Amino acid sequence: MSEPQPPSEPTQEPENEESASLSKKAAKKEAAKLEKLRRRQEQEAAAAAARAESAEPEDPLAANYGDLPLIQLQSMRIADVNDWTEVGALTEALKDQKVLIRGRAQTIRAVGKNMAFIVVREKGFTVQCVATVQPEIVSRQMVKYVAALNRESIIDIEGIVSVPGVAIKGASQQVEVQVRKLYCISKAAVLPINIEDAARSDAEIEKANQAGEQLVRVNQDTRLNFRVLDLRTPANQGIFRIQSQVGTIFRQFLLSEGFFEIHSPKLIAGSSEGGASVFKLDYKGQPACLAQSPQLHKQMAICGDFGRIFEIGPVFRAEDSYTHRHLCEFTGLDIEMEIKWSYFEVMDIVSRLFVTMFDYLNKNCEKELEAVRRQYPFEPLKYLPETLRLTFAEGVQMLKDAGVEVDPMGDLNTEAERKLGQLVLEKYGTEFYILHRYPLAVRPFYTMPCCDNKEYSNSFDVFIRGEEIISGAQRIHVPEFLAERAEARGIEVKTISTYIDSFRYGAPPHGGFGVGLERVVMLFCGLNNIRKTSLFPRDPLRLAP
Amino acid sequence: MSEPQPPSEPTQEPENEESASLSKKAAKKEAAKLEKLRRRQEQEAAAAAARAESAEPEDPLAANYGDLPLIQLQSMRIADVNDWTEVGALTEALKDQKVLIRGRAQTIRAVGKNMAFIVVREKGFTVQCVATVQPEIVSRQMVKYVAALNRESIIDIEGIVSVPGVAIKGASQQVEVQVRKLYCISKAAVLPINIEDAARSDAEIEKANQAGEQLVRVNQDTRLNFRVLDLRTPANQGIFRIQSQVGTIFRQFLLSEGFFEIHSPKLIAGSSEGGASVFKLDYKGQPACLAQSPQLHKQMAICGDFGRIFEIGPVFRAEDSYTHRHLCEFTGLDIEMEIKWSYFEVMDIVSRLFVTMFDYLNKNCEKELEAVRRQYPFEPLKYLPETLRLTFAEGVQMLKDAGVEVDPMGDLNTEAERKLGQLVLEKYGTEFYILHRYPLAVRPFYTMPCCDNKEYSNSFDVFIRGEEIISGAQRIHVPEFLAERAEARGIEVKTISTYIDSFRYGAPPHGGFGVGLERVVMLFCGLNNIRKTSLFPRDPLRLAP
Repeated sequence: MSEPQPPSEPTQEPENEESASLSKKAAKKEAAKLEKLRRRQEQEAAAAAARAESAEPEDPLAANYGDLPLIQLQSMRIADVNDWTEVGALTEALKDQKVLIRGRAQTIRAVGKNMAFIVVREKGFTVQCVATVQPEIVSRQMVKYVAALNRESIIDIEGIVSVPGVAIKGASQQVEVQVRKLYCISKAAVLPINIEDAARSDAEIEKANQAGEQLVRVNQDTRLNFRVLDLRTPANQGIFRIQSQVGTIFRQFLLSEGFFEIHSPKLIAGSSEGGASVFKLDYKGQPACLAQSPQLHKQMAICGDFGRIFEIGPVFRAEDSYTHRHLCEFTGLDIEMEIKWSYFEVMDIVSRLFVTMFDYLNKNCEKELEAVRRQYPFEPLKYLPETLRLTFAEGVQMLKDAGVEVDPMGDLNTEAERKLGQLVLEKYGTEFYILHRYPLAVRPFYTMPCCDNKEYSNSFDVFIRGEEIISGAQRIHVPEFLAERAEARGIEVKTISTYIDSFRYGAPPHGGFGVGLERVVMLFCGLNNIRKTSLFPRDPLRLAP
Repeated sequence: MSEPQPPSEPTQEPENEESASLSKKAAKKEAAKLEKLRRRQEQEAAAAAARAESAEPEDPLAANYGDLPLIQLQSMRIADVNDWTEVGALTEALKDQKVLIRGRAQTIRAVGKNMAFIVVREKGFTVQCVATVQPEIVSRQMVKYVAALNRESIIDIEGIVSVPGVAIKGASQQVEVQVRKLYCISKAAVLPINIEDAARSDAEIEKANQAGEQLVRVNQDTRLNFRVLDLRTPANQGIFRIQSQVGTIFRQFLLSEGFFEIHSPKLIAGSSEGGASVFKLDYKGQPACLAQSPQLHKQMAICGDFGRIFEIGPVFRAEDSYTHRHLCEFTGLDIEMEIKWSYFEVMDIVSRLFVTMFDYLNKNCEKELEAVRRQYPFEPLKYLPETLRLTFAEGVQMLKDAGVEVDPMGDLNTEAERKLGQLVLEKYGTEFYILHRYPLAVRPFYTMPCCDNKEYSNSFDVFIRGEEIISGAQRIHVPEFLAERAEARGIEVKTISTYIDSFRYGAPPHGGFGVGLERVVMLFCGLNNIRKTSLFPRDPLRLAP
């Protein structure tokens, strides 16, 4: 994903775009439903507040609950850091012990005037807490206060762990906390979207629909507008922990292979690698742009004798792409390495790196993958221990045999790539493979042509579930030839002279590849939109939050 | 370094700026010297080429040497990847064995017409290779070809390992390679700067000066203009491997403490955190800017229940700072974490993280540190196993006691910081310490005031060798209070409404810090200019290469 391709027509794939697929009518209906929900909750909140504020006899136990003012939160230090128990650590072993927990009031339910249940959530774990009126310990006013809490407020609870005789359904932990003290340290306003609505799978909604129950479906755009709430769903908690793992494995594997990490500049003089899809800006009076990839500088680092390097950093593309797989800013995972004789050495790294990564994720991120799967069901990725490699010509032939005619010297479009993915899966049983030896004409100017046929190139793409995620190649390391190829593509050589000059003082043969982090996570988890794997996505229409 | 400070006057510290300290006259002189060198080398190269091209009797051994055309390099595959030996692996154990190596021709020296020495460098290791005329093996023409090679060209050598009776001075490896075949696979042009000139320490130059020998001194700007050559010096090879290690330790430590990695957007709507030092651009018709830090989004991730996170990514500052310690683009190491009650929890992480890092670097990067030290001598950093913490007021008092008057409610300037560093070193024996509880007025608007005195704040800076490298604090998590503080600082609240709104749905108390990667490496290694630790630095005057 990291190598800029020749400028292309604005692409649009409405059939894949979740928010686009939602018709205007449906969106209106959803907005109305959300509005109704909001109004109802506002009324409830107001009523609860009114109840809480209504004249009450003075409570001798008032110190045991309430809103904790900032100054008190900081100065009272109700406990040492080590005295806190994480919700996930609440087990039967703690029976009858006093614990101190902090988390969000996920749900609050009053049972009459003497009892209130609160499900407290911390780091994805939940525990049921119960406030029951008890002389000298829990007052009626306290239960009233608890019942009036807004969902998602942050609360501190001191209580005693108990083990109920029956299984607890609505929480992850199989113990209860009998509330002794409860303080609200951050009050939530009325929520624009509810976490349980945002966490619901399509299957659940349809099932409820069939049973005659109307459940709220939160669409992609609404989620992104209220991203800090959306991020709290179990699926999102899983997605971004998996994303972090992907970066970690990428680094650890490469470090163990003698690579090291660099940070190349994102502010570039002139117009980067050319093409229309570049963000321009003024840099202290000089025309500048944002790097469309670390391509030029990572190759320059190779000329600086860095040998084998990688970079993880933002990549900027001002493309007018409204598809499920394009962003204007994404995280590029890039590598560049000296090679002895062939781009096969680069493909070897790709193959071992990703097999290591997939193995690791399947083995070590079970909980996170399960959280994603519960909301967005997917089949585990099928891949081989030795990654399949096909030449572009072989791929074209497979398509032809299946009745799909494509230009044998052109690039594959998204549809052909997907079809080829299907054919490869049927024939070889893998959803992860490398297609190499692409026609030279469809690759960037710095791509090395094949030595036996200049119509082809020492390049490759890698596919997961029928979608391209990696572009790589051997690069031209001969400055005169590089300049010639740039000119042939209509790039003004003087605008990239510092790049070309880098090869004039001896340059080793080298190659590399780039991959989009968000695409790896999206496709490994079989998600349908790259906006689901970008923390705060940027597309042509979205620059916030 | 990561937290934007209130806009300040353009700063200039010419006394600290290497390139500025070089007077115009000296610069002219250096340029003339370099020009002379370049001309002499050009003449030499031309003469060598002429010699090589002069009519020669046909050589029956011509296949054993020469320039390897691209097509041949790729197709002949002279050896399997595994058949290559790294220069660093050439030891006596390989005596009499045939080896294949690739590297740069660092120096070439002919001895008469029958012998030529080439020092080959790969990954910082060097080996002496000898081509001696021998019937049926090495021709006179081959020796001539070798003698005419340009320095820094990339060559492949096949030869036999021999062990000379005496120590080899000019190379790291204590064996020689008797050349059998030699191919140039990438010819270097005449070099604008020589690697050995760029690698020389000031001490060496002065020593030579005293002995009446004039050696070339390459100044900082020239280095950066020819960065791909400059990067090949042993010191730079060390610096960027240390930089990679710093990032690795940062990540590994935090992962082990329950943090995970995020990637926040660098393209931001409006004007980021305000202030003048922001790069603006047009984003598809919307006004946008480059993030001055991941501050806002990392806090939003905390509101999304991410608990403990870190980010490594570029940070953009359009400041007019021409000092030895400011860049317009640098790599920010940022963390943000929920806290139970105090910013002390954040300082605990700082303390343990950096002590772990320093210990690791000293233990595992000896070779790299030694390479840096040889060119830029420095004393190992003095630090304590338990990081010293002083309050700002204590620091002010220490300065006062030493006769330095500073505003007790203002910020410390660079000079005062350096002085305090000296005093701390004398009193406590450490060059790494934390100064906390800064006056609120000198910290960003989102900083939490102290609960016991609103003139102060729950904030801290961290110093290495008398220079600030880290800024951190507890943040305000109460939206109304945050808006109030922003307004008090003249920031239009509506421009940061998505940020402030993030705290409306329950926000845990939290804090974090930011540190500049380049500053950590610079100060750990006692370097005098941040441009030395940035791969391709960006300052107000430099946007290339």
